[in-house]
Amino acid sequence: MSVYTESRTYPTKKKMHMYILDEDLNSVVAQSGIRDGHVLVFVANVTAAVTITEGEPGIMTHDLEHLFSYGMGAPYGNGFADGEAYHHHKTWGCDNGASHLRSLLIGPSVMIPIVDGKPILETWQNVVLVECDTRDRARKVIYQIQGE
Amino acid sequence: MSVYTESRTYPTKKKMHMYILDEDLNSVVAQSGIRDGHVLVFVANVTAAVTITEGEPGIMTHDLEHLFSYGMGAPYGNGFADGEAYHHHKTWGCDNGASHLRSLLIGPSVMIPIVDGKPILETWQNVVLVECDTRDRARKVIYQIQGE
Amino acid sequence: MSVYTESRTYPTKKKMHMYILDEDLNSVVAQSGIRDGHVLVFVANVTAAVTITEGEPGIMTHDLEHLFSYGMGAPYGNGFADGEAYHHHKTWGCDNGASHLRSLLIGPSVMIPIVDGKPILETWQNVVLVECDTRDRARKVIYQIQGE
Repeated sequence: MSVYTESRTYPTKKKMHMYILDEDLNSVVAQSGIRDGHVLVFVANVTAAVTITEGEPGIMTHDLEHLFSYGMGAPYGNGFADGEAYHHHKTWGCDNGASHLRSLLIGPSVMIPIVDGKPILETWQNVVLVECDTRDRARKVIYQIQGE
Repeated sequence: MSVYTESRTYPTKKKMHMYILDEDLNSVVAQSGIRDGHVLVFVANVTAAVTITEGEPGIMTHDLEHLFSYGMGAPYGNGFADGEAYHHHKTWGCDNGASHLRSLLIGPSVMIPIVDGKPILETWQNVVLVECDTRDRARKVIYQIQGE
Repeated sequence: MSVYTESRTYPTKKKMHMYILDEDLNSVVAQSGIRDGHVLVFVANVTAAVTITEGEPGIMTHDLEHLFSYGMGAPYGNGFADGEAYHHHKTWGCDNGASHLRSLLIGPSVMIPIVDGKPILETWQNVVLVECDTRDRARKVIYQIQGE
C-alpha cells in the first residue's frame, strides 16, 4: 500500500468555464504505479469546484450556468434574483458571492475507484474543473492516489 | 492494509426513482474482511447519482423531484421553466439535459467510514442510488473498501 | 499504512447555523501521526451536512440560507414556495422536509488530502458543519485518517 500525490496548476476563465482533467488524471494515475485503490481529485480553492459530468459544449458553456443564474436565482452581480444582496459582499467589499454558493454546491472534489491501474470512468464521465469566480484565475488541483 | 472492489448492477426506473443500497453495502463490506477503513460507493454513469438520505416514500418519490423541477426550474422536457432550452439537447439531439444537471449536483459517490467491520451510518441514513435519466436503465455501482 | 478514527460531538443551532471544524480537524490529523494520505470528515446524521466554504459571517448566516429558501423555493415550513407540501411531513408528521433536501444537496462529508502531516487547505477554505434541522441538535462528526 502506498500514497502518491501530485499537483498541477491550470489557468482558468471566469464564470463557469469548465476544464476536462481526464488526460492529466490518467497520466498521474499511471505515474503512481498503483493498480488498485482510488484517486482523490481536489481543488485547493474556495471559488472553484471539481465534479463529474459529460464534457460537451451544451453543458460546459450553458446549462450549468443557467441552472444557477436562473434556476436557483443566484446570478453573478450584486445579489439574488429577488433583489436580496449577497451578504458576502458586505463582509469583504468583493463581488463573488454567487461564486461561493456555486462552488459549495458543486463541491471541491471527486473520488474515483482505480482497478487494474485505471480510473473506472464510464464512456461519458469526464472529470471537470469548474471556475466559479468572477475573474480569471490559476487553480491548483491535487491528485492523490492511495492503494496497492 | 488492503483494497477490495466489487460491482453490482441494478435495473432502474427513470426520472428520480431511488434504490436503497444498504443491504448490498453491508454484504460487500462484510465480504471484504476489512475492519477499519472506508468504503467508496460510486456509480459508473453520468446520469445517475449516489447520495445519503432517509429512504422513506415522501423523499424518495416526491420531494427531491419537486426540488429540481419546481425549485430549481429544471423540469424534465425541452428546457428550463423560463423557456430556455437545454443546450445539451442541441449537442446530441437527446432529451436528458435535466438528468445531467441533477446527477451533477447530487454527485456520483459517497464515502463512509468503517469501524469494527461496519459502515458507520446513523439510524436514518440510507445510501441510495438515484436514477436521473429519462428512460429506464441498468446501473453499475462499484463498492470499493480500503483499510485494514 | 494505517487508519486512525476519532469522533467528536458538537451542539448545534437549528436552521443553517455553520460551525468551523478546522481546529479539531488539524488536532485529529496531528494526533494520527499520519504524514501522507487523506482525511474523511463525515457527519453521522441525515439532516446535517459537512462542506468546504469560506467561514465568514455573510455566507455563514445568510447567503446559503437564502439560496435554499428563496433561490430553490424550499423554505422551512410546510412546503415549497409554490404551495406544494413536503411529502416527508406526510410520512412521519414531522416538520423538517426542507432539512433533508438541504443536507442531501450539500452532502454529508468532505475528503481532504494530507501532505507532510497537514490537511492541504488553501487560506480561505474552511471545513464547516451545517445544521440543517429545524431544532437544535448534537452532531457526531467522524474524522478518519488513512495513510502512512
